[in-house]
Amino acid sequence: MQKINVGLIGFGTVGTGVVKVLKENAQVIKDRLGLEVVLKRVADKDTSRDRGVKLDDGVLTDDAKAVINDTDISIVIELVGGTTIAKDFILSALDKGKHVVTANKALLSTHGSEIFKKASSKGLDVGFEASVAGGIPIIKAMREGLAANKIDSIYGIINGTANYILSKMTNDGGKFEDVLRRAQEKGYAEADPSYDVDGIDTAHKLAILINIAYGTYIKLEDIYTEGIRRINPLDIKFAKEFKYRIKLLAIAKSVEGKIEARVHPTMIPEAHPLALVDGVYNAVHVRGNAVGPVMFYGLGAGMMPTASAVVADIMDICRNMKLGVANRLSPLSFTDDAVKDVKIKAIDTLEIPYYIRFLAIDKPGALSKISGVLGAHDISISSVLQKDRKVGGAVPLVIVTHHALEKELRAALEEIEKLDMIFEKPVCIRIEENLGTAN
Amino acid sequence: MQKINVGLIGFGTVGTGVVKVLKENAQVIKDRLGLEVVLKRVADKDTSRDRGVKLDDGVLTDDAKAVINDTDISIVIELVGGTTIAKDFILSALDKGKHVVTANKALLSTHGSEIFKKASSKGLDVGFEASVAGGIPIIKAMREGLAANKIDSIYGIINGTANYILSKMTNDGGKFEDVLRRAQEKGYAEADPSYDVDGIDTAHKLAILINIAYGTYIKLEDIYTEGIRRINPLDIKFAKEFKYRIKLLAIAKSVEGKIEARVHPTMIPEAHPLALVDGVYNAVHVRGNAVGPVMFYGLGAGMMPTASAVVADIMDICRNMKLGVANRLSPLSFTDDAVKDVKIKAIDTLEIPYYIRFLAIDKPGALSKISGVLGAHDISISSVLQKDRKVGGAVPLVIVTHHALEKELRAALEEIEKLDMIFEKPVCIRIEENLGTAN
Repeated sequence: MQKINVGLIGFGTVGTGVVKVLKENAQVIKDRLGLEVVLKRVADKDTSRDRGVKLDDGVLTDDAKAVINDTDISIVIELVGGTTIAKDFILSALDKGKHVVTANKALLSTHGSEIFKKASSKGLDVGFEASVAGGIPIIKAMREGLAANKIDSIYGIINGTANYILSKMTNDGGKFEDVLRRAQEKGYAEADPSYDVDGIDTAHKLAILINIAYGTYIKLEDIYTEGIRRINPLDIKFAKEFKYRIKLLAIAKSVEGKIEARVHPTMIPEAHPLALVDGVYNAVHVRGNAVGPVMFYGLGAGMMPTASAVVADIMDICRNMKLGVANRLSPLSFTDDAVKDVKIKAIDTLEIPYYIRFLAIDKPGALSKISGVLGAHDISISSVLQKDRKVGGAVPLVIVTHHALEKELRAALEEIEKLDMIFEKPVCIRIEENLGTAN
Repeated sequence: MQKINVGLIGFGTVGTGVVKVLKENAQVIKDRLGLEVVLKRVADKDTSRDRGVKLDDGVLTDDAKAVINDTDISIVIELVGGTTIAKDFILSALDKGKHVVTANKALLSTHGSEIFKKASSKGLDVGFEASVAGGIPIIKAMREGLAANKIDSIYGIINGTANYILSKMTNDGGKFEDVLRRAQEKGYAEADPSYDVDGIDTAHKLAILINIAYGTYIKLEDIYTEGIRRINPLDIKFAKEFKYRIKLLAIAKSVEGKIEARVHPTMIPEAHPLALVDGVYNAVHVRGNAVGPVMFYGLGAGMMPTASAVVADIMDICRNMKLGVANRLSPLSFTDDAVKDVKIKAIDTLEIPYYIRFLAIDKPGALSKISGVLGAHDISISSVLQKDRKVGGAVPLVIVTHHALEKELRAALEEIEKLDMIFEKPVCIRIEENLGTAN
């Protein structure tokens, strides 16, 4: 039986999962492929730690070059992460004629073009299923399963940490800081949580989804990105009263020849399938012009789910190697000639409903003044909630607007902030009503 | 630019959708493939009806042979349905050296082995994404995306008509017969609804999912199949009281070397993602041993969603043709050598909780007698509901059991049915508590 040798760089959590999947599921992998995947070398700086899996003697090395330069290895799995040495490893592996499988969303969202072009020019494949939404085969679905569609919209819950925190705040209550701290204690959040809670990781993944949906290389700075640190238990409560849930969403929409690309906390109807995606689960809701709405749901991170995606990529490349072909599918699933820059719709030009929570002095004139400023900016009000929840002499005043232009909204909020009656900066959360389900 | 000619047999709803997708999305298809898909011939007995799409002169014919024998055509799309002439068309097309794309679940679940073997022996591909769950790319997910997994379980809502009826009964009330009639008036159910409401169509699709999950050709008669005709508004109400929803589920589980394969109305926890799949939506919940639980959700039927899947298959075959290869992926995604018979777990040996609704005379001794019989069959009771809803002198008595052996349950019910106090045959609905989400 044919054997294909693979090498792994980065023996951390996901790397350990890859070793486990290749070992525990060796039979089903062989049965499906008709060939054997052999893990020949594993490189990691730490060669002593016990990961609970056994490697054969001589497999583990502290030298990534021992993997990259091994002429018997056909596929290099990069699980180091980050955009510096990981990039070197991948480019070197491609230079050595090796296919690459990676879970590195930070790298692909910033240097994807360079990596993919090098791979294509050398007739090599790069698998990156594990870079978005862990075990959910969303990359395959977008590049192949939905390939006959123009993609109207993508709405994703693709950061498990942020979703865990928001779900906890929604279901069990608690302040952002406290819930974050407990998540850190449980290992669900990093010591430095900014990648997750500030939306950066979500933006990386959204960039990859946009690239394969529209055949482009979007710049990260073109994705408007806002995190969840300012979400307050009050907002969670008011959201429920309006029958919404608050989710950190990755959003891409094709609107009149431009692409909306944004990451921010979003109020969505509690009955939408995305509203029910709780805890560390991920989900990506896609609308194609033929298929209509489809949603993919599962574990977006973790040792074994992510390893499932990595090994699926290895198997895809093995299927090509068995037939002696490569580049069957272009990296973005658009041919190089068809890859183009797309126009990005500026966040200022967004026109959607908004939830705004003010902390205002409890005086009869407050609402009149605030709504006056909003009106002057052409922003009409859909509903107002002013409940008796005193917070240091002031009360929260919540306004939900009809569709309003973001630019005008920001200008209005700037004016309102300056009013004497307003304490602290208002919290403003964008509302999405349809999320790809409208006809 | 390279052109690949395709021919279509069956110009009905889905066929019309395929024409539309190939036309409306021609640019994105070309951009992704780097080649042009040309619809060269379309065959249908009815060549006069206006389908709202325009074919070029000379494309439409009433003769399927004109498609099959056209030497310029590389891929034949079979959308005739059924197991007789459709089978002839597919086998003839393969004989003529053409790849095949089909949505025909009835055919593939009964003659899949013959068709796939012929295709493989001739170095041809058969695409069948559209045969299960319409536009949802579940076949691709199972064959490729989750290929690194042993599949622990599959739970599917894969018949839109049955799900529409049960959802309507749940959300708006009404008897099965009335809701069915309204569904027929709206075109959501066929004049002869038995395929859909008796679970036959669901069993066909489950057979295909089992075949690609486990590398086998299951016999349809090995799938225990029970429809939804006996579901009563009372059962819908009681289900809600127990925090369940009733769904027609396709279920496959790998249990101690055997496969459970069954289709029946099932009570599932209202908080499970499948419970929220309403109306004509489909969803397939899969648990893999590495990936954990994943769910795929979308429109399981209809012109455009199903066409999305058909054209995705065409594009997959085009990618192979562009490189001059075929059979990159085995039909079941298991190599021919690895395809084997699997042991089926008989329905008698099932051990799960059950909901049973009796219609009993409202006498104090009724419960004691019934629970006595259940106890004698080693069936213990988890809860009892006996509410004051008189139905012709009798009251419904509902019992939810702990895990019980189906064989014993049936024997007990047979005894209980014979008691004087029992009116009509009891309704018995299987309960699934975890559906692949337990750790």
